[in-house]
Amino acid sequence: MQVVFLGTGAGLPSKNRNVTSLVLDLLQENNTMWMFDCGEATQHQILYTNIKPRKVTKIFITHLHGDHIYGLPGFLSSRSFQGGIEPVTIFGPRGIEEYVKTSLEISQTRLTYQINFVETHNGIIYEDNKFKVVANSLDHGVISYGYRIIEKDLPGALLVDKLKQHNIQPGPLYQQIKDQEKVVLPDGQTLETAPFIGKPKPGRVVAIFGDTRFKEEQDKLAENADLLIHEATFSADQEKLAYEYFHTTTKQAATLAKKAKVKKLILTHISARFQEEDLSSLENEAKEIFPNTEIAKDYTWFAV
Amino acid sequence: MQVVFLGTGAGLPSKNRNVTSLVLDLLQENNTMWMFDCGEATQHQILYTNIKPRKVTKIFITHLHGDHIYGLPGFLSSRSFQGGIEPVTIFGPRGIEEYVKTSLEISQTRLTYQINFVETHNGIIYEDNKFKVVANSLDHGVISYGYRIIEKDLPGALLVDKLKQHNIQPGPLYQQIKDQEKVVLPDGQTLETAPFIGKPKPGRVVAIFGDTRFKEEQDKLAENADLLIHEATFSADQEKLAYEYFHTTTKQAATLAKKAKVKKLILTHISARFQEEDLSSLENEAKEIFPNTEIAKDYTWFAV
Repeated sequence: MQVVFLGTGAGLPSKNRNVTSLVLDLLQENNTMWMFDCGEATQHQILYTNIKPRKVTKIFITHLHGDHIYGLPGFLSSRSFQGGIEPVTIFGPRGIEEYVKTSLEISQTRLTYQINFVETHNGIIYEDNKFKVVANSLDHGVISYGYRIIEKDLPGALLVDKLKQHNIQPGPLYQQIKDQEKVVLPDGQTLETAPFIGKPKPGRVVAIFGDTRFKEEQDKLAENADLLIHEATFSADQEKLAYEYFHTTTKQAATLAKKAKVKKLILTHISARFQEEDLSSLENEAKEIFPNTEIAKDYTWFAV
Repeated sequence: MQVVFLGTGAGLPSKNRNVTSLVLDLLQENNTMWMFDCGEATQHQILYTNIKPRKVTKIFITHLHGDHIYGLPGFLSSRSFQGGIEPVTIFGPRGIEEYVKTSLEISQTRLTYQINFVETHNGIIYEDNKFKVVANSLDHGVISYGYRIIEKDLPGALLVDKLKQHNIQPGPLYQQIKDQEKVVLPDGQTLETAPFIGKPKPGRVVAIFGDTRFKEEQDKLAENADLLIHEATFSADQEKLAYEYFHTTTKQAATLAKKAKVKKLILTHISARFQEEDLSSLENEAKEIFPNTEIAKDYTWFAV
């Protein structure tokens, strides 16, 4: 599981940062990639990565501001042109379906695949045998969501030494022992498999917040996450501005990370008002409260 | 009058060419810039030029395919964010108004300026004291227009030597002689000004074609133009493909330029199928028929 940032700027594109988008690379886990927000020129950013648009099968939109959605019609069209055939599911606030459909219809774009739309709501919005996604609404003036991506616990490893002690030798039987509660051994005996399987490995949790004001109660979405990705549109001394514009400061994001006991915090949605030389001071503001903090840049990858 | 190409690719963005947009720089003539088409990430391309979005007061859309319009909502939003207050008029086929309004409404974007929409039709679609714009429909499967931008003839220069021969000395009177048909001289005499003004200077003509199949009768739009900007999505040997996909070959565009007796031809909308090393051969195919041909690149400027 990896996260790649495609756009880490706020509001407007700049030479250094595109508007918001990131991809959660689940190629190892389920051979797909999930996109979170799709600002204008996200498909252009992808040209400089090894991301294949056809691998992106789910897109989660945090909110409908232009810098988070204006890249969708182009990304979806190019995905079709480049041979994507697997359906895409787009999760997002009410309105995203009308925006995408209107854009595709007026431009007379016919896709080679189907799009399913799911209106995001508080609670579980997606679940399969490996992952669960929970959404929760934030505080941004317009409807805005954070997404908590929960990997289900992974089955424990086979206790091979113990199996050998019981004279059960490696072979196709080992796979059956992993998959089934009981197996029949070559000598006709029935074996309960549970004692030969190690402890389950806890799944990882990534919390991706949309634009929002800081609020104490938002910490449930982030609780104990391996990785919290949060906006930091303002510096620590700009709390008043952050409040007025429904955004968060570096210090507030770090406070949330600390309270929610996450393992790592990545700050994004960095305003073009800040110069490259301001970044280390922004990062330090957060690190004073939550040391394991980093500011994202376009194209940086983080393993989870 | 200058033309700057912001995107010269076909269909999809590539590392070398963005999707279609160009700007006609009329800063010298009327202190504005006119944009023709606005593919995704046009505002990103502008970051690498000295174009100021607030100076763009008219946008002409040739047709509604995504690679020609998906940059509009972002460009319009950023123009507002960057302090644009002058109204913008968008000319284009029916549908452009719905696309722009839906995009701005769903993203809850409130602009600091007004947008006026004019549905393009065959004939004169715009006229002021310096320019006239004529549109004509092309052949692209969907409604697609070419635009002929006609600068009105410029008034002739004042014949200063002749004025001096008549003992009319330089001063504020000279401006009156330029502006008025008759003026009263200091000695009370009335002077007819026409004999003291040189021949009018012919205005320039730029013809900008949208995507289209080649058709003989399209030459009226291009007739005697100082500059013809035309798509060349296919190479000379791909006439059949060009026909099937409603596009034009290098050779066909050059044939049009020759027949229409234009001064210069610039080819654009170059497919990403072609590599950089193919370009000179594409250019040569056109030059065999119309020598004064160039293939546009992103960010190249041409004076008219």
